[in-house]
Amino acid sequence: MNSLANTPHRLSINQATIRAQCDMKQAVEEITRAGISGIATWRDKVHEIGLAQAARLIRDAELKVSGHCRGGMFCAADKDGIAQAREDNLRAVEEAAELGAGSLILVVGGMPPGSKDLSGARQQVLEGLADLLPVARAAGVKLSIEPLHPMYAADRACVNTIGQALDLCDAIDPDASGDIGVAVDVYHVWWDPELERQIARAGKARLHAFHVCDWLVPTQDMLLDRGMMGDGVIDIPKIRSWVEREGYDGPIEVEIFSERDWWRRPAAEVLETCKERFATVC
Amino acid sequence: MNSLANTPHRLSINQATIRAQCDMKQAVEEITRAGISGIATWRDKVHEIGLAQAARLIRDAELKVSGHCRGGMFCAADKDGIAQAREDNLRAVEEAAELGAGSLILVVGGMPPGSKDLSGARQQVLEGLADLLPVARAAGVKLSIEPLHPMYAADRACVNTIGQALDLCDAIDPDASGDIGVAVDVYHVWWDPELERQIARAGKARLHAFHVCDWLVPTQDMLLDRGMMGDGVIDIPKIRSWVEREGYDGPIEVEIFSERDWWRRPAAEVLETCKERFATVC
Repeated sequence: MNSLANTPHRLSINQATIRAQCDMKQAVEEITRAGISGIATWRDKVHEIGLAQAARLIRDAELKVSGHCRGGMFCAADKDGIAQAREDNLRAVEEAAELGAGSLILVVGGMPPGSKDLSGARQQVLEGLADLLPVARAAGVKLSIEPLHPMYAADRACVNTIGQALDLCDAIDPDASGDIGVAVDVYHVWWDPELERQIARAGKARLHAFHVCDWLVPTQDMLLDRGMMGDGVIDIPKIRSWVEREGYDGPIEVEIFSERDWWRRPAAEVLETCKERFATVC
Repeated sequence: MNSLANTPHRLSINQATIRAQCDMKQAVEEITRAGISGIATWRDKVHEIGLAQAARLIRDAELKVSGHCRGGMFCAADKDGIAQAREDNLRAVEEAAELGAGSLILVVGGMPPGSKDLSGARQQVLEGLADLLPVARAAGVKLSIEPLHPMYAADRACVNTIGQALDLCDAIDPDASGDIGVAVDVYHVWWDPELERQIARAGKARLHAFHVCDWLVPTQDMLLDRGMMGDGVIDIPKIRSWVEREGYDGPIEVEIFSERDWWRRPAAEVLETCKERFATVC
């Protein structure tokens, strides 16, 4: 297994990792000060400061944008809801293009409130993706479906495995252009007995992103208790070896939601820890 | 979709549903008083009163035992741990036989503390199952692998989908004798995009058990916040239709861990609610 110690340029920090500590400007400053060359942006932080200003900050700092978080949320109870989701996704594509993001990360949405129609929600996702792909293509933005852990299937994302995401890619982009693919976040997929096989199935063209953090035992909160790499049970190097076997050589993005721990520490400390763990346990 | 209102004999109560309120004797009394004809037993409750006494109570009440919970936990850090697990599973098989349980429910175990070797744990499960099957067969007890939700993959069960459980069955019992099969608990598998297909793959011989409860939104605790059928997002009748299409006509077992709600109500109220929901929303 090759170490990442010699490729610090592959480290990217998802802004969510220091979201409690930093606004957009502070995040760019802290990441730059730490000598890290990549960032993944979040829409709410971008909106706070304004798209043009966020893009300028990132360009001036010469940061690479590994992804823009997040589009998706395609599912809705009625046509108005679908139309609103569409409008919002068009804006997200524009933002990703303006920010120079490698891809727009898609959290596809769960069932509308009150619904038990999981297959219906999945059909809405398929239709929403098919509708969005030509727009994204024209804007030069890749669409990256991020399967979320099955514990989010009801209310956040009804796409829960790499295999399921690839089925969607096959349906929408049968020639595997790579314009639509998957974001592999170890937190969401580490448990999947099909993982190695589905990563191989994805291949380089559809492997758009690789996100790392760790699964803590016990996990105290279903949403906001992700661990720093090395503090949990995920064999990150093994999963990385599978994506790299397919030729993935892009950013390795740290995305940690941690209300009880990392969001309470100074951003500089969090980033130093990310760098150290990136070089030693990823 | 056929209603269950006309087949009340199919309702079985997993003892965990009233575990906070009732010891073994009380559980049998409450279930009998509610006019319910099935129970699934838990080992700790059986041990409290003693196996012979528990079996006598159940026989005297003429309750059918839909399953005995639980064997498994095959994974360990060393040979001593493996040997202990084996001994414990041998006792569990004996108990299931003595109780007249339809099957021994297996929660297979997660990774030993400190381990990140998920595939190693899964290999230990395969070996443990292969070792136990002839013993169970000789005792006339079926082994039922219960895939748990992926959120338990680290510390409770590294078998997380029906497909994965069936792969184990194929490896150990290629002739599909039915002596080893799966327990389908909607709470654990409702999200699985492969669910319908894997239930069809299982077929009648390997569909050993069908457990119901519901997935609440939001879920407040990863272990002890299951919902009463109808209070969450799971389309239970649809999943039931899939198992019944394969010929499953066995017990429908209610298993609810609910620290904040159902464990705080009188057992009689819980059981009446189970009966009502069984007849209307399952």
